[in-house]
Amino acid sequence: MMHRNNVRFALLAATLWAAAIAPGLFAVEASAQPSLDLMPLPANVVLGTGKLALKPEFSFAFIGYKEPRLERAVRRAADRIAARTGIPLAIAEAADPSQAFLQIDCGAASLPVQTFEEDESYVLTIDASRAVLRAPNPLGILRGLETFQQLLALDVQGFNFPAVEIKDAPRFKWRGLLIDVCRHWIPAEVIKRNLDAMAAVKLNVLHWHLSEDQGFRVESKKYPRLHGMGSDGLYYTQEEIRAIIDYARDRGIRVIPEFDMPGHSTAWFVGYPELASAPGPYEIERHYGVFKPTMDPTREGTYKFLDGFIGEMARLFPDPLFHIGGDEVEGHQWEESPSIKAFKTARGMKTNEDLQAYFNKRIQAILKKHGKRMVGWDEILREDLPRDIVVQSWRGQESLARAAKQGFAGILSNGYYIDLMYGAAAHYAVDPLEKEAAALSEAEKTLILGGEACMWAELISPETVDSRIWPRMAAIAERFWSPQETKDVADMYRRLEILSSRLDWTGTTHNASYPKMLERLAGMEGSFEAVKLLADYVEPIRGYGRHDSREYSQTTPLNRMADAARPESFAARAFTGMVDGMLSDAPAYAKNRREIRHRLMAWKANHETIKALAANSALLAEVLPLSERLAGLADAGLVALQSLESGQPLPQGWIEDRAALFQAPEKPPYELELMVVEPIRKIAEAAAKIPAGD
Amino acid sequence: MMHRNNVRFALLAATLWAAAIAPGLFAVEASAQPSLDLMPLPANVVLGTGKLALKPEFSFAFIGYKEPRLERAVRRAADRIAARTGIPLAIAEAADPSQAFLQIDCGAASLPVQTFEEDESYVLTIDASRAVLRAPNPLGILRGLETFQQLLALDVQGFNFPAVEIKDAPRFKWRGLLIDVCRHWIPAEVIKRNLDAMAAVKLNVLHWHLSEDQGFRVESKKYPRLHGMGSDGLYYTQEEIRAIIDYARDRGIRVIPEFDMPGHSTAWFVGYPELASAPGPYEIERHYGVFKPTMDPTREGTYKFLDGFIGEMARLFPDPLFHIGGDEVEGHQWEESPSIKAFKTARGMKTNEDLQAYFNKRIQAILKKHGKRMVGWDEILREDLPRDIVVQSWRGQESLARAAKQGFAGILSNGYYIDLMYGAAAHYAVDPLEKEAAALSEAEKTLILGGEACMWAELISPETVDSRIWPRMAAIAERFWSPQETKDVADMYRRLEILSSRLDWTGTTHNASYPKMLERLAGMEGSFEAVKLLADYVEPIRGYGRHDSREYSQTTPLNRMADAARPESFAARAFTGMVDGMLSDAPAYAKNRREIRHRLMAWKANHETIKALAANSALLAEVLPLSERLAGLADAGLVALQSLESGQPLPQGWIEDRAALFQAPEKPPYELELMVVEPIRKIAEAAAKIPAGD
Repeated sequence: MMHRNNVRFALLAATLWAAAIAPGLFAVEASAQPSLDLMPLPANVVLGTGKLALKPEFSFAFIGYKEPRLERAVRRAADRIAARTGIPLAIAEAADPSQAFLQIDCGAASLPVQTFEEDESYVLTIDASRAVLRAPNPLGILRGLETFQQLLALDVQGFNFPAVEIKDAPRFKWRGLLIDVCRHWIPAEVIKRNLDAMAAVKLNVLHWHLSEDQGFRVESKKYPRLHGMGSDGLYYTQEEIRAIIDYARDRGIRVIPEFDMPGHSTAWFVGYPELASAPGPYEIERHYGVFKPTMDPTREGTYKFLDGFIGEMARLFPDPLFHIGGDEVEGHQWEESPSIKAFKTARGMKTNEDLQAYFNKRIQAILKKHGKRMVGWDEILREDLPRDIVVQSWRGQESLARAAKQGFAGILSNGYYIDLMYGAAAHYAVDPLEKEAAALSEAEKTLILGGEACMWAELISPETVDSRIWPRMAAIAERFWSPQETKDVADMYRRLEILSSRLDWTGTTHNASYPKMLERLAGMEGSFEAVKLLADYVEPIRGYGRHDSREYSQTTPLNRMADAARPESFAARAFTGMVDGMLSDAPAYAKNRREIRHRLMAWKANHETIKALAANSALLAEVLPLSERLAGLADAGLVALQSLESGQPLPQGWIEDRAALFQAPEKPPYELELMVVEPIRKIAEAAAKIPAGD
Repeated sequence: MMHRNNVRFALLAATLWAAAIAPGLFAVEASAQPSLDLMPLPANVVLGTGKLALKPEFSFAFIGYKEPRLERAVRRAADRIAARTGIPLAIAEAADPSQAFLQIDCGAASLPVQTFEEDESYVLTIDASRAVLRAPNPLGILRGLETFQQLLALDVQGFNFPAVEIKDAPRFKWRGLLIDVCRHWIPAEVIKRNLDAMAAVKLNVLHWHLSEDQGFRVESKKYPRLHGMGSDGLYYTQEEIRAIIDYARDRGIRVIPEFDMPGHSTAWFVGYPELASAPGPYEIERHYGVFKPTMDPTREGTYKFLDGFIGEMARLFPDPLFHIGGDEVEGHQWEESPSIKAFKTARGMKTNEDLQAYFNKRIQAILKKHGKRMVGWDEILREDLPRDIVVQSWRGQESLARAAKQGFAGILSNGYYIDLMYGAAAHYAVDPLEKEAAALSEAEKTLILGGEACMWAELISPETVDSRIWPRMAAIAERFWSPQETKDVADMYRRLEILSSRLDWTGTTHNASYPKMLERLAGMEGSFEAVKLLADYVEPIRGYGRHDSREYSQTTPLNRMADAARPESFAARAFTGMVDGMLSDAPAYAKNRREIRHRLMAWKANHETIKALAANSALLAEVLPLSERLAGLADAGLVALQSLESGQPLPQGWIEDRAALFQAPEKPPYELELMVVEPIRKIAEAAAKIPAGD
């Protein structure tokens, strides 16, 4: 699944661009009434008076239903509080429950396998003497414990929690993240730390994309050549998978496996070429795109194999949902095969879509036999499928609404492709129940279960995946959890920066990996300040632009500035905010001017350092034009700033004369975009507009 | 083991101070002929011409003796190179060994349990086509692989290794690090990452301090109340211990356990009070110092117990050496006990030392029965002990030399107490074979096996321990490994900064934990730049000063600036170097002046930000006086700098009038020292000495 086909890309990108250019979206002024530093924002918050001080003894008590998972969760929350505060808390169950620091009141047990019908609501009440967390179901306790941790703050008295009453429940049942572990291998410990971060923002589905042209990542005991020949030895053992499922369940997260079929399946055929629609041999695909190898839907042997395989996986993955992919069937092999063509003719099938529909119905029957409900991408949807399947839409709300009208449940992924490197605000603006879905009846709307972000893995590695997911994923998590009217972008960004820092304590490396990658660019163990002064203000180019620049494969190193740079530059956003502040202060232009000049001077001077470093770094050499452009822009910005200060307008045509600076190059080979062009242009435009003789 | 008694402290601190104040020790000018960025420096390096480029295919071959440990080591080295470079290397054994990128030529197997008699030498030859690593023993291969990794560099062509021939062997057989896991619990994963870092600098002994007044940290199946009641549940299972021993062996590191007796043993008595010299009950000691509870050396039951215990531990720990501590027997319980007094009288023992000597002889016999050689601190040494024991000296070279003259082997720890927070140069200046030991005969000198640094754990936690060990430990490792004449302090510091950054790839958190601790000080998830501008230029006070400031215990939070601050401020050393450069440039004073003024202005302005942050942070509030003093010093420095520029001397008495600024306060409650006072004083002194009217 990658959707590089032009029509598809246009669909995906249009959604994000439309969101990105909405007016005011990048404003950085805090809202008038700052909210608590929570993310996602709860449905209902009433602030009390006073605070609950953190004490060296962290005692807890279960005054309702109790289970080992809940005790582990409470201890995990207390351990993380101990880590964040640096206080060696004495964590223990209270001898007298009424005196416990944290009382947990859970209504009843949850189901042995988590469902979307279970109640995730909770009520958290904190006063000066204790915190009480109530929920009908352990899932609500898990969600409330994350809110509790996010409320912890430091003031001049010490660490404490604000007095508050929070009544909270999710807006959508399905709040997911897809992680593709096939294009690049993502080891188990990386999945685990991301599960911790997912739990922190109340996500509840890990959609695990486990097979692809580029790799088959699960141990199959029944068909050992699947992982044995299709993974380069990079796969999860069944024991590891069970451990991850347990780990996820402990955090209230379902694990839904995806085995993409009949397309996107080259890696299956390395060990089992007889499954394919053309003779082998096959090799693991190293490049990216949509490829020809496709399962043969006309052979009974294919279904016998898949029955055996799905049976094994159905036992390994307890979740009742089973994702079969079903996207981007390339068609070439089907059209080239006389026997497949004859099969289609004999059955009156006109198109490859008809043949795929036949395949899907067969697979759906096999899934049903093994107790599973089918999930697939848009392409699987056909009127004649049973209504218990679920459609995952990369096409958008229109496609989802149409499915809902036919009685099919669905989730939205269009607008949430985080591999495309759009900013958090773009994803935040996308809502599963807006656009065409807004016109659905209330009954139909209940079929829109929620949404899922997609972390496709063409351009990620274990070193970079966390920074491609976090913190932007948290804004999407808020869209899925919080009330529909939660739309204050400035406040979202304010809280997102706090959350990003807080997520470090879950073990994710989205922040930690950055300085080491910059050091590498600077020349292994060199000083990285100069590189940071450039890298902080760039972003990898959006959409699929990086693939236009070069032919990526599994063996391409992902160690360039485009890999180190943050998908969304907080530093550039802050600089833009400073410039907006200064310009809104006209005609004095005094606000922030000192900081802006300081920054422009630093960029201007920095290019000499970058040049010196690049003379000894093959990795840095490619960004010299970028550094030179930033220095040129900074120089222009300083002239414009001087013009504002002196009240002397810039000469006519001054900006146009510098078009090469202000205009981003097409398809830059370094695959980066400079994020401070617009604020510098704004300074210049303001300076050009000063009334002459003023 | 802590040695807070005044005489002992005087001994330990005197060694370090003498080293610290040696003239020229803090010079930062690079030496005329910069060495390769290796640490420890090899015995012999001959640079060749050309380079060996890193290729996407990392092929290796064993052309001599081969064992699984060596293959794991080669793959580990290649994996780390892949991680550091960000290149997805294809790591595989070469089909044609003669064409391998890295050829390993090992002479023969090592012993099943590592000894000091084994050869750790290696020869590493790199030319433009390949690297060849030869060693008589796998230990030499392990050492050479670390050198190989340290040679990897980036230039404008890409990643490569310089052509070189390195013939290397250690100066000392015993190159150790003691980690106390009792005062504060240090989990297994922290030990493991530190073993990786130890291997990186060619250390070969982990001295694991496993029992103390404050905790008994090993599972005993024979006496389960030892860990069951003496550890708060914080202990290593035997399975974890075996895993750590295997992990260490894979890295060529011996694991020598220490069970301190008959003193420092309160935690044993919680479960087994009958071992003590006074009736119980006993509780785990929470505070620090030398305490009364001591084993009863007069009861046969004590030896029966210890025979059983040592027998169990002798099987668990394969190393032939077994450390019994033996230090700081407090004596009170022995003097208060009528039966012990009677025992002494009956046997003609005059002192407690006599009684301890009796105890040690009994223990030594038990150890011998279980196949172990006894190791202990200075206090165990008595003429009548067999010559196979080893003495670890916290007293110094004189004590070690005396033992050697009597025929006892020993190692030096005096001068290597890294918990005392002295700089790397102070430890680097201490040599096991200097002072009194220099006068020994060559035969006697062979009894000085090496040295060991000590990481006592009163003031460390899992969050801070790495930063208290690294990078300073690497300078000590170089003292133990490299030729005696390796003494260029400036070059040591140059390489130490590179190594510190490189060690991040072993997983140690000495750098990674710093920004998170500063963020906490700034108010949890607040911006930490202002806090860093202060914290970068302070060091925790040296020696045992922090204990004078407050009563520390196991439950005292270690989350203050004194815990976050680096034991040695590289930033302050760099600033000192800049000032020295400027002053050596008199009368122009132009060199570095801009950077110095910039820094002084930043400090001066920073205090306002610190005040604002401290208003919301209980953790930052305590350092306000420190921040104010830095701002005051910066202001004074700016005036002095202006004076240098203008050629107008400072008025008479100007410095004396600012004595409060230049004089560090006694016992500051924040337990930190400002490390830029001297360079600012130097500027002022230079400005005061300008000839009037010049």
